[in-house]
Amino acid sequence: MPPETALLGLDWGTTSLRGYLIGKDGTVLAERSAGAGILHIQNGAFADALMDLAGDWLAADKSLPIVASGMIGSRQGWSEAPYVEIPTGAGGLTLHRHGGFDRPVNIVPGLARRDADGVPDVMRGEETQIFGAHENGIQDGLMLLPGSHSKWALVSDGLITWFATFMTGELYSALRDHTILGRMITDDTDDAAAFARGVKYGCDASGILQRLFSARTLALFGELSEHQVASYLSGMLIGAEIAEARALTENAGAQITIIGDPELGQRYRTALTHCGLAADQARKGAAARGQWRIAAANGLLRSPAP
Amino acid sequence: MPPETALLGLDWGTTSLRGYLIGKDGTVLAERSAGAGILHIQNGAFADALMDLAGDWLAADKSLPIVASGMIGSRQGWSEAPYVEIPTGAGGLTLHRHGGFDRPVNIVPGLARRDADGVPDVMRGEETQIFGAHENGIQDGLMLLPGSHSKWALVSDGLITWFATFMTGELYSALRDHTILGRMITDDTDDAAAFARGVKYGCDASGILQRLFSARTLALFGELSEHQVASYLSGMLIGAEIAEARALTENAGAQITIIGDPELGQRYRTALTHCGLAADQARKGAAARGQWRIAAANGLLRSPAP
Repeated sequence: MPPETALLGLDWGTTSLRGYLIGKDGTVLAERSAGAGILHIQNGAFADALMDLAGDWLAADKSLPIVASGMIGSRQGWSEAPYVEIPTGAGGLTLHRHGGFDRPVNIVPGLARRDADGVPDVMRGEETQIFGAHENGIQDGLMLLPGSHSKWALVSDGLITWFATFMTGELYSALRDHTILGRMITDDTDDAAAFARGVKYGCDASGILQRLFSARTLALFGELSEHQVASYLSGMLIGAEIAEARALTENAGAQITIIGDPELGQRYRTALTHCGLAADQARKGAAARGQWRIAAANGLLRSPAP
Repeated sequence: MPPETALLGLDWGTTSLRGYLIGKDGTVLAERSAGAGILHIQNGAFADALMDLAGDWLAADKSLPIVASGMIGSRQGWSEAPYVEIPTGAGGLTLHRHGGFDRPVNIVPGLARRDADGVPDVMRGEETQIFGAHENGIQDGLMLLPGSHSKWALVSDGLITWFATFMTGELYSALRDHTILGRMITDDTDDAAAFARGVKYGCDASGILQRLFSARTLALFGELSEHQVASYLSGMLIGAEIAEARALTENAGAQITIIGDPELGQRYRTALTHCGLAADQARKGAAARGQWRIAAANGLLRSPAP
């Protein structure tokens, strides 16, 4: 009887490593995670980290194929998988076959885009989640992966045709911790009204440089209390991100799907609502679904049992 | 014979104190500065700081009027001078008369503006420089005071009719020192080509959140060398500031005058050129000229000698 396992999917990022043991029908049979992100690997000991996570799975199925997505394919990772230019579908993500293990480690390449000025943008790992966002196959629409560096992507006819990175989360932290705006902030308590006010002000703006200062002036005039400033600032930046992304996609009426942490996703859904937009949260497991589909599109899966 | 001195102007900011002994015809007879900014004054010893700077001038002319502009009129200063709403001319800046000294200290109030959403912006000290920008009287035009918090202001029929604050300088520092973008920066060497590229990319943009990431991706692709990243990022932020200010002033064809430090002014003039705009640098002494005009408009000057 052939093994019931069909693929080992590795979501291997900067700070963590997740492994998905995927069955013949594409369902996740088991899932594990470890802190072995590429920043935490000493002396290139990637093989050891993989064995620590999934040695027993690999021993039990000597021909189990491996597909890995995320920063593991970056210059700082196990083996660099050159970026693929968009537009591309799952099948266009030719896997980078790394030989430094007992069997090939097939790394999903990141994506690169050039804008009209020839300026590049990149993603690595998110492409896999995007192709796995929906449970019933790859679907068209606008995808949003919020975070320290939020990614927005447009999927059209099954291809990623556009994407962009917004440094919203990291910018918020830098402003809060290292500018005069932070001096108004006493705590990070969520304040729904202040967040809404910030979002509306941010997504209504033609630019953020000038509006940022309002986090200070509103507090100065007593129109925002100290415990509201953080929520207001966060809202304003998210609102501005939404406005910019909408402008860059020419206000495509596409359905928005949010991928990733549900709590942050809910924050963005609330923000989108304040900007007059709606979004769905993708079901858990986008990375594993994407790995499965990319592996299938690249002929990595063993032939089905007869 | 009446004394030849007519006014003591104090430009009293957060980090420094400058004194101008101004003669009957408005020319600066003598100028001194000290590190006695309001942040450096202990236990409210403002009078001592003033005596240290200008005790001899004040002793020599017992009725010499004093006008002070800048953060000295803020809540953290000597005495709070409430903001005046725009539009206002020099005469509308009713001086706040503070009595805690051997003669009145007449403090120039700061300005406040509310935008269409009712959100306030403020300035304190810049209004005085704006009214003193030109040597031959108050002139109409677009005024730019670059800095950590850049101010842009529109003067029309002798009134400040609009202004806005852009946190460009502080944002640059926070991004450079506390985000992933800074990790690409090895030094702050000026690179004219990278600065120009950044300016053009910034002033062409509908928003900055997405374009910021290009400081990383261009370096990642080897299209910007490590010593160019700082100039590129600085240019992009200044370019974005210019684009936002132009949009907020509805691309008013007004003459742009830059007030303040000539070196930073030259940087902005270069940036404006890259955005297809031109500007003049105001002659040194804008604060003293503004203090003189505001004092005159408020009847603070002694009657001219018969």
